[in-house]
Amino acid sequence: MKRPLILITNDDGIYAPGLKALIAAVKALGDVLVVAPDGPRSAQSNALTVTVPLRSKKLSEEPGVAIWQCNGTPTDCIKMGIRKIADRWPDIVLSGINHGRNTSVSVIYSGTMGAALEGCVDDIPSIGISHCDFRPDADFTIAGKIAHEITAKVLKEGLPRYTCLNVNVPDTNEIKGIRISRQAAGHWEEVLDQRQDPTGRNYYWLGGEFVDHEPDAEDTDEWAVQNGYVSITPVQLDMTNYKFMSHLKDWNIKI
Amino acid sequence: MKRPLILITNDDGIYAPGLKALIAAVKALGDVLVVAPDGPRSAQSNALTVTVPLRSKKLSEEPGVAIWQCNGTPTDCIKMGIRKIADRWPDIVLSGINHGRNTSVSVIYSGTMGAALEGCVDDIPSIGISHCDFRPDADFTIAGKIAHEITAKVLKEGLPRYTCLNVNVPDTNEIKGIRISRQAAGHWEEVLDQRQDPTGRNYYWLGGEFVDHEPDAEDTDEWAVQNGYVSITPVQLDMTNYKFMSHLKDWNIKI
Repeated sequence: MKRPLILITNDDGIYAPGLKALIAAVKALGDVLVVAPDGPRSAQSNALTVTVPLRSKKLSEEPGVAIWQCNGTPTDCIKMGIRKIADRWPDIVLSGINHGRNTSVSVIYSGTMGAALEGCVDDIPSIGISHCDFRPDADFTIAGKIAHEITAKVLKEGLPRYTCLNVNVPDTNEIKGIRISRQAAGHWEEVLDQRQDPTGRNYYWLGGEFVDHEPDAEDTDEWAVQNGYVSITPVQLDMTNYKFMSHLKDWNIKI
Repeated sequence: MKRPLILITNDDGIYAPGLKALIAAVKALGDVLVVAPDGPRSAQSNALTVTVPLRSKKLSEEPGVAIWQCNGTPTDCIKMGIRKIADRWPDIVLSGINHGRNTSVSVIYSGTMGAALEGCVDDIPSIGISHCDFRPDADFTIAGKIAHEITAKVLKEGLPRYTCLNVNVPDTNEIKGIRISRQAAGHWEEVLDQRQDPTGRNYYWLGGEFVDHEPDAEDTDEWAVQNGYVSITPVQLDMTNYKFMSHLKDWNIKI
């Protein structure tokens, strides 16, 4: 019987320490195939590369771990990995370990979570894993252990169709435990840092500060990581607001 | 009393006929501010531009219609429009009219829907509007009338917090009516078209064919447009799979 095939990508790029930590953490659980962007692709959401061609290249191969880079987004990497590089259908897709948390509304911007969602479009159990410490030299020891445990569990139990996991590890050495959380409501504020170039024209850097719309709710992903817990949120592809559908039907829009 | 401020973007870029059609369709309903990408940004999802600075430029202004371009994604354009360009808080965000449908799983890849989701992050009623005819010379007459009616209705009724509308107009001149739909399950197949460059190296164009996982379900967005109906799907930011949360708690993952 073949070992499970673990397809890994990230959005910080092929040289990110978080990616290396994830490979090291899970390689005992199966054969690892890494297809990761050739440079940083943060905040690429589920973006696809459609205006230039995609290319991929094998960087290294040792028993149980093959590493490829791709010029596309994390979602492109998963498509390329599944359809063109893997020699069999992956058993699990892992994305991360991201440098920086992907709680709350960040799930819609995150390239890490985009790749996890892409895995579950193809009905492959998928996990996005993020570390709240966004520094390049963050310590991934604990996050790696958590990634190992959750990956082992998902390989055994599977996940519901069209649902992946969003795992966020708090920035602390004293983790209090695991919380199964919902996505907090929130937004990013002061997002555009205005500057002037030498010719006097304005330009803007996108950034900002996260604002939690419900800081007192104790069942959210954001609350969990702010209070020392690992957050696991099940994230689904179906974004339909079912409750509002019947109300919309009452609008009786005529055309 | 000021007229409603209608913030418009798209993902086909500032010169797309679908954008012009949308402006013409809704300018009687309020003051229009367009902030659109300076070129095509299809399939950009909720991607943000974080590795190069953003710039914007006013292209034209006439009474009731100001048009700006931006070098970013549709989501960047909405951030720039709300935070830096608009002289007041927008009353509604419109994205489109997209050349090509955004039903089913396309909602996670679509730059059009990314911009609509970005509007509702800021609690502004937002609508993404797509025309199933993806040709550059598509006729937007009917889609424009539908955009007008739905925009007028949403300006009057509002939308629930964190929920936007995904409107898809079928490629027919004989529209049967409007269906309030849910997002169909599906995926894109044969997505990577492999070719060789003159040096013999492989490259890939991303594309493919949509596969509906539930073609017989009559309550989906995909069914509606395939059967001559305008589809309206309420799309929510919260992607939590609540049903699976209790099951996940039973896993008792130890760390």
